[in-house]
Amino acid sequence: MPYPRSERKLGAGSEVRLIPVRLEKEIAPGDSIAGQLLAHFRQWRVRLQVGDILVIKHKIVSKAEGRIVDLNTIEPSAESLAWAERYKLDARVIELALRESRAVIRRKNGVLITETQHGFLCANSGIDVSNVDGGSHAVLLPEDPDRSAAKVRRELKKAIGLDIPVIITDSFGRPWREGLTDFAIGIAGMKPLQDDRGRRDPHRYKLKASVEAIADELASAAGLVCGKLNRTPACIVCGYRYQRGAGSVRDLLRPPATDLFR
Amino acid sequence: MPYPRSERKLGAGSEVRLIPVRLEKEIAPGDSIAGQLLAHFRQWRVRLQVGDILVIKHKIVSKAEGRIVDLNTIEPSAESLAWAERYKLDARVIELALRESRAVIRRKNGVLITETQHGFLCANSGIDVSNVDGGSHAVLLPEDPDRSAAKVRRELKKAIGLDIPVIITDSFGRPWREGLTDFAIGIAGMKPLQDDRGRRDPHRYKLKASVEAIADELASAAGLVCGKLNRTPACIVCGYRYQRGAGSVRDLLRPPATDLFR
Repeated sequence: MPYPRSERKLGAGSEVRLIPVRLEKEIAPGDSIAGQLLAHFRQWRVRLQVGDILVIKHKIVSKAEGRIVDLNTIEPSAESLAWAERYKLDARVIELALRESRAVIRRKNGVLITETQHGFLCANSGIDVSNVDGGSHAVLLPEDPDRSAAKVRRELKKAIGLDIPVIITDSFGRPWREGLTDFAIGIAGMKPLQDDRGRRDPHRYKLKASVEAIADELASAAGLVCGKLNRTPACIVCGYRYQRGAGSVRDLLRPPATDLFR
Repeated sequence: MPYPRSERKLGAGSEVRLIPVRLEKEIAPGDSIAGQLLAHFRQWRVRLQVGDILVIKHKIVSKAEGRIVDLNTIEPSAESLAWAERYKLDARVIELALRESRAVIRRKNGVLITETQHGFLCANSGIDVSNVDGGSHAVLLPEDPDRSAAKVRRELKKAIGLDIPVIITDSFGRPWREGLTDFAIGIAGMKPLQDDRGRRDPHRYKLKASVEAIADELASAAGLVCGKLNRTPACIVCGYRYQRGAGSVRDLLRPPATDLFR
């Protein structure tokens, strides 16, 4: 059952489609993410096309890379224990979050915002807790999500001959908005930012502050079809005209000097 | 030319489609946004369907509501002048941004982050500058974007008999990420947050921190097809299973007590 492709333009440029990719099989350490996706594509007769973008939730990437920690092996410090006790949290998760961080940004109302080794600012260093194999395990972020994205891109290219950009995502909170949305944490094969500064709007007004975080918008869009409650860890974005080129998630990280939060 | 509708499910739930809506005509004070959209739909033989969501960039809404200020009518204070001078900004815009704010949150490196009357935290109180009618004008945010969204929804319902949720958006920066993404600033006819707390993932692990800011994800997704450089101020989102019900953008605003930024 191939995905139907509509090439219809409607005056405004064509539509963008978000096609969920469901993986039945549980991902295990050592698995190839590209291999699992390709198996799915074969099974469903999905043919990736030039212009498609693949967005993948990090959790399966972390699992494939063995970034799983048995929480029973973690001995929390007295500090982690005290703080966890106070807010009824798992001290082992707090301990692990601190170990995975390079700085504590905020610690307030039981929320621990850290800067991860990668430079992401998020709750608990992005650690998820999951019942992998029945026991309580923590799933850490990939060590180098740009590298993880590049690996999937490379393996897909080798298998099907197409250069498909890959974005790896995680759900983060936002300091002043309720709820989580998905953000890009790793990128390969496309520019994460689109810089329209100096271009003119339909009134010939020169745009000033128009750098658009395309990779984060793609991550959020994919978040609409990728779920935590179903086995849909990836999606294909069709019809979005991205800018090719070397890109890194680092392009999206505000340097501390201009970061208005710190 | 009706939009083709594919109802194909692929194991994971169906795909989501983002269909750009291009409006050729410039929106003027007093225009009905719903009326303009309906004219476009008639022209292109677009038939909205049950389940569709309409996402609209605020700028046309602001214009329709007459939220336009001729910058020549603004006399900046000495403080606004000094600050604008220092960072080579337009003092009138700074002045207007301060007038539209209820608090200054940050003022750093030439960036002015305010809390707007609505409670949004954004640069320059969300003011855009545009060459409306050849002169320099500022476009303010709608006075009550929830009400603006409700009006479009009501008028659409009256005209076509369908209850289509409406989201109004603006592009905001994020404190620790580069680039802008679109956020919901007004909502009618759907819940902006999806609360999965207490539900279980495929491993039977009970989800803890899983409140998803659907309206912001929809806004970001729409941002991929709505442009500043083309006349595409709206988009139809098809295939996303939203939760009906009364919703307000206020649901997305973190109360100052739990806001980690302030």
